[in-house]
Amino acid sequence: MKLLIVYAHPSPTSFNAALRDAAAQEAVALGHEVQISDLYASGFGAVGGPQDFLVLETPGQFHYQSEQRAAALKDGFSREIAQEQEKLRWADCLMLQFPIWWGGPPAILKGWIDRVCAYGVTYADGTRFATGLFQGRRSLLSVTTGGSARRFSDEGEYGAMETVLWPIQQLFLGYLGYELNAPLVCYSAPRIDAAARDEQIATLRARIRSLLHDPIESTPLPSPRQLLDSIGDRSWTSQV
Amino acid sequence: MKLLIVYAHPSPTSFNAALRDAAAQEAVALGHEVQISDLYASGFGAVGGPQDFLVLETPGQFHYQSEQRAAALKDGFSREIAQEQEKLRWADCLMLQFPIWWGGPPAILKGWIDRVCAYGVTYADGTRFATGLFQGRRSLLSVTTGGSARRFSDEGEYGAMETVLWPIQQLFLGYLGYELNAPLVCYSAPRIDAAARDEQIATLRARIRSLLHDPIESTPLPSPRQLLDSIGDRSWTSQV
Repeated sequence: MKLLIVYAHPSPTSFNAALRDAAAQEAVALGHEVQISDLYASGFGAVGGPQDFLVLETPGQFHYQSEQRAAALKDGFSREIAQEQEKLRWADCLMLQFPIWWGGPPAILKGWIDRVCAYGVTYADGTRFATGLFQGRRSLLSVTTGGSARRFSDEGEYGAMETVLWPIQQLFLGYLGYELNAPLVCYSAPRIDAAARDEQIATLRARIRSLLHDPIESTPLPSPRQLLDSIGDRSWTSQV
Repeated sequence: MKLLIVYAHPSPTSFNAALRDAAAQEAVALGHEVQISDLYASGFGAVGGPQDFLVLETPGQFHYQSEQRAAALKDGFSREIAQEQEKLRWADCLMLQFPIWWGGPPAILKGWIDRVCAYGVTYADGTRFATGLFQGRRSLLSVTTGGSARRFSDEGEYGAMETVLWPIQQLFLGYLGYELNAPLVCYSAPRIDAAARDEQIATLRARIRSLLHDPIESTPLPSPRQLLDSIGDRSWTSQV
């Protein structure tokens, strides 16, 4: 199978990097194909907007989804976005590896989501959840936190991890149609010892084996034209 | 009073821009001071990392919070970050105006949070929620959505708006100590008519009047040295 790991951490010597490497090694050892998007290393731009596109359809009144729709129909995305879209099309399984900052992914990863997962390419009106284009593909969140498991609970101030990760798990992965798996969380990452880190790595390796266990053959994404025709194409007139 | 509006939308002709302007006008008309951080217009960088700092303490092994701590003690933040921190210190009330993309703020706003709200400046170990440095100050989220109110409900696929906004409301604003107010949400923004937009703007104006109604005098933030002394300074040895 084909695994894409999207990894977002500014330090190549971080524990997040060790987790990324362990996941990749495990998958390769099992005979799977792996690609890694190392967002910091590649200098991925986080800010979604006009710079996503080779040319703008309506430069005077920028409407993000309309520009995405137009770009989807004419291969008009900037190179770094087109490359990431290609990886996403390719992958049967998507793993996101990141530290939780302020309750969510680092901005560089949020920007990857905002920019890469464009209208007309990864979704269109009405293709979501049970009808999402990524139905049949699998996903896994692997995250680290500064806070303890106790703080991330119904009794803790941060709330249950299920709530904290709801936007990325449900409104991103679930929306696209991915099969959701329980997130793997390394709590109190700055304060755990080497043995606990080794244990976390072993757990991640087991989760990767499980994720890749039963082979799936992903349905190819439709072309933008097929996708837009299938939903009855429309365009937007009002600004958000 | 002093109101800071942080605004994140790529289009100057967007409805989000109209909401921002209405909020600012209402506050000024009431005799308050307003500053706006227009993140797209200023070209704010979204990616938190080494570029946040004038010099790095430990260039070989980048640890974000350690670098933030060091920069806090020696005015070592890059200019765009230092400017935003100054506005945050200044403001009695903080309003965030943004469209919900994939269940959260656009990456440029997440990056503003990641980078500006640095350790040693806006928080330190143990200063959070009831002991947060922004206790006594007020906050307001004003957001637009593509999805309907029905989808953003306990019965809808996106879940209740309270859950969707939990990370930014509780783990960001609440963590810093801000007084939380019910978010103002404009649902289905691309599909509502001019009258509904006018109504939304009128509601926002009322919310601004309410937000600024009883004067508060914010406690100045401690200096980084005062803050770190007060909590018993420490540094990190392990990577996340």
